[in-house]
Amino acid sequence: MRVDLYPLPTLGRKDLMGKTAVVIDALRATSSMVTAVQNGCREIVPVSEVTEAIEMAARLGRKGVLLCGERGGLPISGFDLSNSPLEYTPERVAGMTLVMTTTNGTQAVAAVREGKRVLIGSFLNASAVAKKAMAFGDDLVIVCAGTQGRYSSDDVLAAGAILAALTKEGVELSLDDMANTARKLYEDAASDLHGALSGTTHYEKLRALGMGADLDFCLRLDAMDSLPVYAGGVIRADALLA
Amino acid sequence: MRVDLYPLPTLGRKDLMGKTAVVIDALRATSSMVTAVQNGCREIVPVSEVTEAIEMAARLGRKGVLLCGERGGLPISGFDLSNSPLEYTPERVAGMTLVMTTTNGTQAVAAVREGKRVLIGSFLNASAVAKKAMAFGDDLVIVCAGTQGRYSSDDVLAAGAILAALTKEGVELSLDDMANTARKLYEDAASDLHGALSGTTHYEKLRALGMGADLDFCLRLDAMDSLPVYAGGVIRADALLA
Repeated sequence: MRVDLYPLPTLGRKDLMGKTAVVIDALRATSSMVTAVQNGCREIVPVSEVTEAIEMAARLGRKGVLLCGERGGLPISGFDLSNSPLEYTPERVAGMTLVMTTTNGTQAVAAVREGKRVLIGSFLNASAVAKKAMAFGDDLVIVCAGTQGRYSSDDVLAAGAILAALTKEGVELSLDDMANTARKLYEDAASDLHGALSGTTHYEKLRALGMGADLDFCLRLDAMDSLPVYAGGVIRADALLA
Repeated sequence: MRVDLYPLPTLGRKDLMGKTAVVIDALRATSSMVTAVQNGCREIVPVSEVTEAIEMAARLGRKGVLLCGERGGLPISGFDLSNSPLEYTPERVAGMTLVMTTTNGTQAVAAVREGKRVLIGSFLNASAVAKKAMAFGDDLVIVCAGTQGRYSSDDVLAAGAILAALTKEGVELSLDDMANTARKLYEDAASDLHGALSGTTHYEKLRALGMGADLDFCLRLDAMDSLPVYAGGVIRADALLA
């Protein structure tokens, strides 16, 4: 299996053709999506802008719909949930439609929409993503959201966790330089992800905002088996699409 | 000193303002430039296109001018020198003007031309670059050429070598995530650069083309003290600009 890893969503349509795409915004958008699907949400509608989210929620009818997301890491005024995965509990999200907008994550989802299939990845479901990608068998493109248009270590390490899981499954991999690097970085960091991310930009920003519990939550490798799939503009549990 | 590292020349003018820029295409364009300056060339004129190089050489008068570069790693028909630094001997380049075009390197030089100062970096002159950047004292932007628009491990490791040299000099550094990663990757790889680059895309391509001697040449840390500076459209030894 050929794997190309983009540290930022800078790829084009031709880079996705016929391939399985995985999108990662480990801190915190895709971790929240994985958690929401794990906890039984009906679907997630990712949108780019705050105003677009509000319009979409109005269009869907506010009943059964939650407005979710952040700007600058902080909750958005009038929204139901922030981007903290801790808020995506079964009590809040089960059966609900989540309209979600985040600074980096939802843009990255949009960037891979032309993939043959699009999976939502994170540390939380790294092995589930790897096993599903194996089952599909197509070449893989992993796309990181990054932070404000820059390489972000948290995303690249999460990509490395998926690559390490593929390696553990015995998949024969042909890796581009970024994927090769990400796997090495993850293997070096696996025993202490907090230590490896200490001093990195986005991790420290969230810590400074008092979001240490979110960091603890998001860095739990394989804590979940949910596999959100993006298709037709919405993210749903894989099983519902089968 | 703040250091931002771009694995590809995707930055804008505002990212360069007031800063020292270092451009790296370790295999092989900037290594050839460093070698040419070390061996006494008069100046290097980097241009993007083959036709532009031919026109520039004609304009400068062919006497005292060498046409240099590659496409796809291979020599260009009718050119005097390829992109192999082994060809940039004192006998060939001393006193000469080199008009140079390469697939990735000369584009990267163009991308940083708005830096307050622009230095040409490589493994060969990593410590010389670090010392000069310290002397300038401004924040640093290191820009890698990459390979065909993708992250290239050789360039990122060379950036890491410069960052390790700055660290060794005791400079207090504030690193973005990519720079932080590059320094770690270099420190892990320093004792065996060939081993670390084994299996990476550009390194293996050049090896397959029979250019193992070029790889040996380019990976010699601090083999030279030359410090090419790009200003006013040409690259010259730092001393000549002082």
